[in-house]
Amino acid sequence: MAGWDGWFVVEHREAHSQARAGRLVTPHGVVETPVFMPVGTQAAVKTLSPHELRAVGAEIILSNTYHLYLRPGSDVVAAAGGLHRFMAWDGPILTDSGGFQVFSLASLRQVTDDGVRFRSHLDGSEHLFTPERSMAVQRDLGADIIMCFDECLAYPARRDEVEASVDRTTRWAQRCHRFWQEEGNPERQALFGIVQGGAYPELRRRSAEALQELDFPGYAVGGLSVGEPAGVTVAVLDATVPLLPADRPRYLMGVGTPDLILEAVWRGIDMMDCVLPTRMARHGTVYTSEGKLTVRNAAFARDFRPLDPACDCYACRHFTRAYIRHLLKVNETLGMRLTTLHNLRYLHRFMERLRQAVREDRLPEFRAAFYRGEGAVLGFRPPEPAALPEA
Amino acid sequence: MAGWDGWFVVEHREAHSQARAGRLVTPHGVVETPVFMPVGTQAAVKTLSPHELRAVGAEIILSNTYHLYLRPGSDVVAAAGGLHRFMAWDGPILTDSGGFQVFSLASLRQVTDDGVRFRSHLDGSEHLFTPERSMAVQRDLGADIIMCFDECLAYPARRDEVEASVDRTTRWAQRCHRFWQEEGNPERQALFGIVQGGAYPELRRRSAEALQELDFPGYAVGGLSVGEPAGVTVAVLDATVPLLPADRPRYLMGVGTPDLILEAVWRGIDMMDCVLPTRMARHGTVYTSEGKLTVRNAAFARDFRPLDPACDCYACRHFTRAYIRHLLKVNETLGMRLTTLHNLRYLHRFMERLRQAVREDRLPEFRAAFYRGEGAVLGFRPPEPAALPEA
Repeated sequence: MAGWDGWFVVEHREAHSQARAGRLVTPHGVVETPVFMPVGTQAAVKTLSPHELRAVGAEIILSNTYHLYLRPGSDVVAAAGGLHRFMAWDGPILTDSGGFQVFSLASLRQVTDDGVRFRSHLDGSEHLFTPERSMAVQRDLGADIIMCFDECLAYPARRDEVEASVDRTTRWAQRCHRFWQEEGNPERQALFGIVQGGAYPELRRRSAEALQELDFPGYAVGGLSVGEPAGVTVAVLDATVPLLPADRPRYLMGVGTPDLILEAVWRGIDMMDCVLPTRMARHGTVYTSEGKLTVRNAAFARDFRPLDPACDCYACRHFTRAYIRHLLKVNETLGMRLTTLHNLRYLHRFMERLRQAVREDRLPEFRAAFYRGEGAVLGFRPPEPAALPEA
Repeated sequence: MAGWDGWFVVEHREAHSQARAGRLVTPHGVVETPVFMPVGTQAAVKTLSPHELRAVGAEIILSNTYHLYLRPGSDVVAAAGGLHRFMAWDGPILTDSGGFQVFSLASLRQVTDDGVRFRSHLDGSEHLFTPERSMAVQRDLGADIIMCFDECLAYPARRDEVEASVDRTTRWAQRCHRFWQEEGNPERQALFGIVQGGAYPELRRRSAEALQELDFPGYAVGGLSVGEPAGVTVAVLDATVPLLPADRPRYLMGVGTPDLILEAVWRGIDMMDCVLPTRMARHGTVYTSEGKLTVRNAAFARDFRPLDPACDCYACRHFTRAYIRHLLKVNETLGMRLTTLHNLRYLHRFMERLRQAVREDRLPEFRAAFYRGEGAVLGFRPPEPAALPEA
């Protein structure tokens, strides 16, 4: 794995927390961490063009292997020259393994040690995902960062179920690693291992240690954001992140509200993704420096101010709350596009401020101001880490 | 009406046809004619931002009074400072009168000489549109060009029905003109009269002559594109356009396929609008220099060429048919946005070529090449003007 030494550089460790600021060097460009990755499930971040993504400050995006495998098919994407060329996004891309979607979207037929047999949520057709198949599909998609095929359980789950699942995920990670080395593109695609173990610190340790024997270019914390309270999320991070190697990027999967982004970065996480900011936007709710605002509401019918007077995004520079509300009410897609642009710009500016606080050893002040509602009264409260089972 | 003398300048009359090239000077800028106007029914051209409209070459857009009256309400638009500011489009705008939509979309309750009582197609609520109400709403919307409230019959219609309708439309035009002069904004909004008369040349003449007694800043040919064959459309234009004053702009309502645009310009029409190019685009069909192409079709799943290799639009500069097909198939709105951008760009480039052919007295060659399929094999055939009833 010598090829991946130095691809991630920690440039600064914050003085009061586990947070760090760094850079990830990929074949499609450099990513400053901590970073939030917008989700382009079907080879597009819903409503936006790739040039608009650049304009909001996106440096890396995530796309979903399960969806692209079904439509248009990874063979089509490969024939296009890979996902970057297919969707005309020349920045870095991360693809997930398809595991989470297979468990959450498809009708499951059977999980065995071999893999998962499932029915498509689109047409009921039957498919088999194995670690090797996920690796082959992700190789064909050609993202810069690819993920091991893992089993993701719902929360809560019994200890014996989680234990069996962790061991299966470890065996699958070994097969992913082997396929990646032998039939993948290990020079240009960084494969991440995914630490599972639910809310059981002992199992998180077992998972983290087993994965590190394979020396992955990066590690993800999986199995969170699956319905557990925020106190459990942060307690699992407290128990898991210190077990990961300091010189590899750490990716918390599926987390994307500002409070949990902040708490994760505090605990040493470098990368995050979530559909929430863009989904919220399409439903008419935006983050602003004055608080969360549901612009669909009748209260904004004659509000001729921008979504956020402090924002520099395209939506805020040109359009009013009243107009955007009108567009959303009459189902003009321009409305969802403007709220999506705004929320992503908001979140990327939040990440810029967060990175700067890390680099300047000001994270405790930043965190205190955030929960006091300075800059944005978002109504978040600091999560109290939950007590996790000992063994 | 002296205020409107010279607002429209005919700069060139084509040597072989009735076509002319000119300029329309509005409070929001100059429009080169003949011009095609994209339709922004609900204060947005579906899927596009106003900046994208500029980029495809749009100089003037149309918006629908009926829709804006219902949502968000002309009072909201007026409070925003008018439609230009509400939708952030600083170019010229034309609003229709609401007449066509009242007759085609609403559940009609009653048409009397006073006006039309109807139920909203949205919630069934009851409303009354009169000539005065239409004028007041259009005044509040604040478009540069506004239209008389007229009665629009379906095709075919009996002569006695059409005759009664023409006379009612004339009486309504007189009331519109009076309201516009006394309570409207006659310095900044140009009011157009609408010539009706169905497929009866004698009634077209009666309508045109009655309207000209009011000396409108412009005249529209209404009641076409309502289901009649193309041969009838052009025969009605042959019978009607020569009756209109040469120094006023002439607007053919609801026509927008390239063949009928060409035939209308040939006959002396200066302005046109149509939802077809944008609606077609959203359904996945685009005009290209190689012919009409339904990019949704499976044939394009692995076609990695642009929609039209000869096009300079954003969609054609960055994306492939395969990608756009994928977006349309999976209902990503970016797909409809790209096809819409392309079709409007195609049509505006068509208008540029058409204007140049008019200015250079090459319209017969342009027309012959068009029907031979040079530049674009669109499969159109020249319409044979139909024989219209004598009286």
